[in-house]
Amino acid sequence: MKKIITISREYGSGGRLIGKMVADQLGYEFYDREIIDMAAKESGLSAEFIKKTEQNLSSGWLYNLLLGTSYAGTTGNATQPVGQQGLPLADQVFNAERKVIINLAKDKPCVIVGRCADYVLSTAEEINQSELLNVFIYADIDAKVKRIEEIYKESEGDAKKQIIQTDKRRANHYNTFTENTWGDRKNYDMMINSSSVGIEATAKWIVELAKKS
Amino acid sequence: MKKIITISREYGSGGRLIGKMVADQLGYEFYDREIIDMAAKESGLSAEFIKKTEQNLSSGWLYNLLLGTSYAGTTGNATQPVGQQGLPLADQVFNAERKVIINLAKDKPCVIVGRCADYVLSTAEEINQSELLNVFIYADIDAKVKRIEEIYKESEGDAKKQIIQTDKRRANHYNTFTENTWGDRKNYDMMINSSSVGIEATAKWIVELAKKS
Repeated sequence: MKKIITISREYGSGGRLIGKMVADQLGYEFYDREIIDMAAKESGLSAEFIKKTEQNLSSGWLYNLLLGTSYAGTTGNATQPVGQQGLPLADQVFNAERKVIINLAKDKPCVIVGRCADYVLSTAEEINQSELLNVFIYADIDAKVKRIEEIYKESEGDAKKQIIQTDKRRANHYNTFTENTWGDRKNYDMMINSSSVGIEATAKWIVELAKKS
Repeated sequence: MKKIITISREYGSGGRLIGKMVADQLGYEFYDREIIDMAAKESGLSAEFIKKTEQNLSSGWLYNLLLGTSYAGTTGNATQPVGQQGLPLADQVFNAERKVIINLAKDKPCVIVGRCADYVLSTAEEINQSELLNVFIYADIDAKVKRIEEIYKESEGDAKKQIIQTDKRRANHYNTFTENTWGDRKNYDMMINSSSVGIEATAKWIVELAKKS
């Protein structure tokens, strides 16, 4: 029985929804953006700042962070210089999220979406590796565009642009903070195309796999 | 119900065995190396030559082929120059295999291992795309080494080298003759790590997926 399931996913593939369905069907906890608030508490950095750090690594933001000239605060107003742990702020964010993810996984059976959780948990000595299931969800570009158009009422062109940019940022974040490559099959137990298998069927597969392995 | 299943696989992942199990469980035809003999008949090239072409694309062999200075024969003695269709011989081999694969898939429900069958069938107008299931099987390097050591009685070092070289050749062959990249998730409906899921369970997943979609 797999008690810790991580879902990595392409933007627009329905990975978050699938993760939620899996958690509901197994009676597991479900964590996605909640981790940002927990990491804020853990690190003393603001949730706003953590969110920006997660999203903006490809821009000058990271460069500034690495030079130690960046600004953040615990008040939600990202204008106060910090760096009290002597680490680049982006590393502090990653370490705070890492700690939160490991504690959550140790605490209760759960499904965790995104946040390099597959890497964090695969490399955590505290985690029983036989209880860990790492899944990657992807989809055909047409299906992803349709999904983003429907959910966020975007035009087709904007949806496509957003998909490409978001996944670039996700890959960049993952590749910066882990030793692995985002989307590389080596990191995962299974990779499922949700547009050919179907959203509900994909959730069902993951539930079955968790139960039977 | 999926009536045509292609299995692409890393060397040592058990993909061939899994494909055979899937075919047996579904009562489908199973094709792997048999395609070489059929392509030999189709093209008039020797089976020996086709096998070499499949395996040696990364060496000077392809270069010679493309320069039209290569040799092959229909007699199993690969020393006679041919090129009667006015195409590079490597392309003739690919086209012959392509024709064979499409005819097999049109004829009876089947499982086809390797030979760019996922690409060939995904781009074939004659094939009902809703009946096609493309799966990629991979495995952790330790599991692959163990498997090759056991089956072929290789030393650990030799097994590792063989795995890396064989997959390089497979990728090179695929990337040369298709518009896609070998192992890129975009090409497949599902990618399964047979060393975490298990050989028999992987076969079972594919059978279930074929039945229910």
